[in-house]
Amino acid sequence: MSTARPSPERRAAYPHFLSITTRWADNDQYGHVNNVVYYQFFDTVVNRYLIEAGALDVAGGEAIGLVVETACRYFAPVSFPDTVHAGLRVVHVGTSSVRYEIGLFANDNDDAVAQGHFVHVYVDRVGRRPVPLSAALRAALAPLEPR
Amino acid sequence: MSTARPSPERRAAYPHFLSITTRWADNDQYGHVNNVVYYQFFDTVVNRYLIEAGALDVAGGEAIGLVVETACRYFAPVSFPDTVHAGLRVVHVGTSSVRYEIGLFANDNDDAVAQGHFVHVYVDRVGRRPVPLSAALRAALAPLEPR
Amino acid sequence: MSTARPSPERRAAYPHFLSITTRWADNDQYGHVNNVVYYQFFDTVVNRYLIEAGALDVAGGEAIGLVVETACRYFAPVSFPDTVHAGLRVVHVGTSSVRYEIGLFANDNDDAVAQGHFVHVYVDRVGRRPVPLSAALRAALAPLEPR
Amino acid sequence: MSTARPSPERRAAYPHFLSITTRWADNDQYGHVNNVVYYQFFDTVVNRYLIEAGALDVAGGEAIGLVVETACRYFAPVSFPDTVHAGLRVVHVGTSSVRYEIGLFANDNDDAVAQGHFVHVYVDRVGRRPVPLSAALRAALAPLEPR
Repeated sequence: MSTARPSPERRAAYPHFLSITTRWADNDQYGHVNNVVYYQFFDTVVNRYLIEAGALDVAGGEAIGLVVETACRYFAPVSFPDTVHAGLRVVHVGTSSVRYEIGLFANDNDDAVAQGHFVHVYVDRVGRRPVPLSAALRAALAPLEPR
Repeated sequence: MSTARPSPERRAAYPHFLSITTRWADNDQYGHVNNVVYYQFFDTVVNRYLIEAGALDVAGGEAIGLVVETACRYFAPVSFPDTVHAGLRVVHVGTSSVRYEIGLFANDNDDAVAQGHFVHVYVDRVGRRPVPLSAALRAALAPLEPR
Repeated sequence: MSTARPSPERRAAYPHFLSITTRWADNDQYGHVNNVVYYQFFDTVVNRYLIEAGALDVAGGEAIGLVVETACRYFAPVSFPDTVHAGLRVVHVGTSSVRYEIGLFANDNDDAVAQGHFVHVYVDRVGRRPVPLSAALRAALAPLEPR
Repeated sequence: MSTARPSPERRAAYPHFLSITTRWADNDQYGHVNNVVYYQFFDTVVNRYLIEAGALDVAGGEAIGLVVETACRYFAPVSFPDTVHAGLRVVHVGTSSVRYEIGLFANDNDDAVAQGHFVHVYVDRVGRRPVPLSAALRAALAPLEPR
């Protein structure tokens, strides 16, 4: 087939991981984690990485990362009570923006159940105009570049 | 600029609309509806259209629509207690798949705050293999083709 | 029976109403709105009333209402795409606290599908110590006392 | 004061625990996990316990547990990226119903940040009439009785 549909990646494609527990309410009427919830996993792995790296001061930072684009491709279902392991890498660091890619893995499986991206543009908190990424943020992102 | 970043569409680009009320819990720590919630709006306008058109029998239908791809671009924030008006159109109907495009509009504004897409592949409920779209579904989708 | 289990109330028991649209993701694996989501409805009707009455300045107010207790009794299911009409009344106004009672009604039905309560204690935003309710808040609450 | 407001319990009051990771979207506009999300934790610890004990067959069981009452008292905030440890005990087992009590603990703290209860009534899946608890369920619940 000539389709551009990608195939699932392996865990080795991601330099950083976070384990996230699923919840009963994540399952929708078909008995699988609802497609929307995958983006909670994306949001969570990105923001937690930044908080723990000291690169995101949610309450008081001058610059905040606005989400301008997200996307996800779904390969296989997950269901509560599975554990999701979210892999994270950075594929583009621009003047004011960062593009993250995320792969989600269920339990002990090595094929992604879903993968997608998440683009942040940094703006000043008050005026919401793009600002250059801080040196602290750039340093925090370096370990997320693909190996 | 040579960027491919699209600009916000107008309401006239969508043949069908659903009004959705926002909730206190939709707002995240920055005081705006969290990026994840936009996909709840996508999911809701698509499924409600199908249910009301008689083309989705959630509990007993032989075929179910699996979400295989979603994406969203964010142009402007919305905040509780804004009302979101979700515009819906269909841009591709394949043998087993449908690609929906959704534009989200806040209150009385005519520029989209976000737009994205949502791809369903229909599979049989038990074996989860692709099946052709039913005639009832094809008929239900016809009014969603762009005017 | 000697049980204290209350029976469903009617709409006339509530002086204020807000209509809330359900979402696909609200339904859980049993095909009904998950029990957790009812509290989103509680939170939404209370906060929206206060915002529209000018009695809640989310971003800048000196005092914020902390939720210290909530409860809900469930009488009948609701399911997406039902519309929920949330009735609101105030049954106790203390020095620093307010007790709201909420009844949820589905579509055109006059018997509550669920009812519960929600207790706010007002504290100063920084020190999180209880503060007396403002005159503006007391005035806003007056119309919510049962008729 | 003569108030009945309870004080936070310790972990030793609960015979079973489940660790649950918080998510970015759990935080509301005040920067704390929204009061509604606590009930997702309740729902999750109860249902996961039952699934792992083999006492809940979500897809095919003849009897399902309907939630008829929930309540929560909030003592202290939690915030993403805290980890929540949900303690679970059973305090009443009736003919058709079970009353669970849940205490939520943040990170390494030994004082509950919140505690509440959750009442299930078991009904047959089709007719939704109360049915006696199965022997398997009664056996699964025994270890949850307070030590």
